[in-house]
Amino acid sequence: MNDPIDDISARPVNDPAFEPSPVRRALPGCRWEGVETLRYKPEDGAPFRDVTRQVLFQMPELHCEWRYFEVAPNGHSTLERHMHAHAVMILRGRGRCLVGQGIHRVREQDLVTVPPETWHQFRADEDSPLGFLCLVNRDRDRPRLPTAQDIEHLSRDRHVAEFIRTGS
Amino acid sequence: MNDPIDDISARPVNDPAFEPSPVRRALPGCRWEGVETLRYKPEDGAPFRDVTRQVLFQMPELHCEWRYFEVAPNGHSTLERHMHAHAVMILRGRGRCLVGQGIHRVREQDLVTVPPETWHQFRADEDSPLGFLCLVNRDRDRPRLPTAQDIEHLSRDRHVAEFIRTGS
Repeated sequence: MNDPIDDISARPVNDPAFEPSPVRRALPGCRWEGVETLRYKPEDGAPFRDVTRQVLFQMPELHCEWRYFEVAPNGHSTLERHMHAHAVMILRGRGRCLVGQGIHRVREQDLVTVPPETWHQFRADEDSPLGFLCLVNRDRDRPRLPTAQDIEHLSRDRHVAEFIRTGS
Repeated sequence: MNDPIDDISARPVNDPAFEPSPVRRALPGCRWEGVETLRYKPEDGAPFRDVTRQVLFQMPELHCEWRYFEVAPNGHSTLERHMHAHAVMILRGRGRCLVGQGIHRVREQDLVTVPPETWHQFRADEDSPLGFLCLVNRDRDRPRLPTAQDIEHLSRDRHVAEFIRTGS
């Protein structure tokens, strides 16, 4: 069967003037057309290291936001908790995550559930980035950072004490 | 630095008895531990061909559901529309999609927005599956199938007429 539709641009071949396109192309290295790459929460001084954020979907009709975070090799996300949950899929690379008191190795396409009010932190391996899709409710509370008492409590487990990064 | 955490199981190394694990491992071929692979909507007779569905995240705390659909080579999803929106990322393979009146080539990691009340259908290429992540609101209306009049209207564009599949 001959297929008349051979165009690889994001525009539909049957309406080249169509704007905006419902398709946004993937670019090399987990970037996307029309999606801005932001430094993760630069405004609030939370301790993180080498993390970028891209908001993939944020629509009034959708009750969640779909983001992509990437932690550079040896970097880490903020250790935090909040009332809202996270649904995560690793998209690129590998690393480890803390969820509650457990530390887990994670690799591409693994799924991670972060329940409400659960401490969590993602760390990339020393030789690999760690990129992950992260789904959250559109209406949600702000993350909370650990107090000194929280850190003391978490650190009673020596593996957790070695894992967590609370300074930038 | 020696890393004491070397276990590749989903259990945290610092608490091997932890259940259930917040991490569900990716398995070969876009399957996941603990996620059932379902035939797409077998109950309602909607016309589709060779589509499987896996629900990756469905939690009371999350206002959306995160699913993975896979269309086998040469297969297609149902041509439908509804009031809720879809946020889609291609995870595996390639194919084409109809969104409204436009037909688009899609490949891995491309993003597709399906606005409310917009006809849409995904088709895998003849020599490749087409697997995609699809986000929807938890509370949503049921998809509606095209009437004969809808099909006649859509088919005024000859590319769309050639593209759509309305029988199983």
